Amino acid sequence: MIEMWELQGEGDRRYSNFSWRTRMALRHKGLAVQLRPVRLTDKAAIAFSGGTTVPVIRDGDMVVRDSWAIAEYLEQRYPDRPSLFGGPSGQALARFVNDWVDRTVLASAFPAFSWHALALQDDEDRAYFSGLIERLTGQAPDALSGQQPRYLERLARAVDPARATLKRQAFLGGAAPSYADYALFSVYQWGRILGAPDVLAGAAPLKDWFERLLDLHDGHARATPAAW
Amino acid sequence: MIEMWELQGEGDRRYSNFSWRTRMALRHKGLAVQLRPVRLTDKAAIAFSGGTTVPVIRDGDMVVRDSWAIAEYLEQRYPDRPSLFGGPSGQALARFVNDWVDRTVLASAFPAFSWHALALQDDEDRAYFSGLIERLTGQAPDALSGQQPRYLERLARAVDPARATLKRQAFLGGAAPSYADYALFSVYQWGRILGAPDVLAGAAPLKDWFERLLDLHDGHARATPAAW
Repeated sequence: MIEMWELQGEGDRRYSNFSWRTRMALRHKGLAVQLRPVRLTDKAAIAFSGGTTVPVIRDGDMVVRDSWAIAEYLEQRYPDRPSLFGGPSGQALARFVNDWVDRTVLASAFPAFSWHALALQDDEDRAYFSGLIERLTGQAPDALSGQQPRYLERLARAVDPARATLKRQAFLGGAAPSYADYALFSVYQWGRILGAPDVLAGAAPLKDWFERLLDLHDGHARATPAAW
Repeated sequence: MIEMWELQGEGDRRYSNFSWRTRMALRHKGLAVQLRPVRLTDKAAIAFSGGTTVPVIRDGDMVVRDSWAIAEYLEQRYPDRPSLFGGPSGQALARFVNDWVDRTVLASAFPAFSWHALALQDDEDRAYFSGLIERLTGQAPDALSGQQPRYLERLARAVDPARATLKRQAFLGGAAPSYADYALFSVYQWGRILGAPDVLAGAAPLKDWFERLLDLHDGHARATPAAW
């Protein structure tokens, strides 16, 4: 069975947005998985991967880290199971959407949501994560919380293209979800688990799309402990 | 032969960015086309389309307007010619990229580039276009020109995800161009034709990608009168 390492916070919150991309990809492929929760500062637990971040998977002798690399690995290794990409062009454009999520969407969502994760950390992890937030945003978590309305507004503007697309199709991938959907989904699922404001309440068609994602694969994403 | 209506400015500049998407789509499909240039204010010339904007194509009895609708029409009508999308998932994600170009990239590129188009208009078109710019941006063209550095900086930030993707693949569509490439290409081709600053000079990998697009289909896009 495939093993997958992901972050674990207080109350068993599995909050890593990158890990959610991998969780959904594994479910999409119908692959059974043994989850291996790790604390943020427990880098020893994932040292075997050669990196310091989750997600990491082990599939037999294969160890793969980085959510995008894992998606490509799964597609290549399990070609007969439901495709994550729907062909080479779908895969190439899903990579673009993944990059768009990382560079445009998270540029607003990280400062807007990340400091909520502090409440899910024990003392050691909290100090570490606080330093990470400051390094990535140039601001202390307290300062960020005061600016949340501004970042939420930016986030809403950043996802405007997805809103336009989802008015005309059920998923970014069309009639069926693609890995591109999981990439964007992971950001909102992260906020939902962290207890950030429910930015999708009343925000159709994004809200309807998010609900469809929560329902997928027997409601896997809906079942995790979360605030909304 | 398919007829295509597109904007024409002074010096025969064919500057409409939406029309460039259609031009490239027609070439991609290997379809011969008879171009029908129209002035910006000559709405009578395209009244038969039921709309007031180009591009418009006529293919036998079929009239189609709106660049995205034209791309979908061509793909469906000419399935045996090279695909613009590479399958349903590629088509769905290309729609997202098209929406991203319209809503995120043009939000910076329009205020940065559009006022350069005034120099390509005769008096009547210039007054009309000036009003259009003011209506769409809330600012007069003179005010916009003073803020160009700010909008160019925003544009560079907006296309950051494409820059990341194109470090790892030749086209947004992967090894071969997709309609998604033509959508983003159209923005830079528009700036190139209008005589806006060459924002891609030295901006690898976007510059290399743009050069590949200019070379496609026997250098069709490179051959048009342009400033860079």
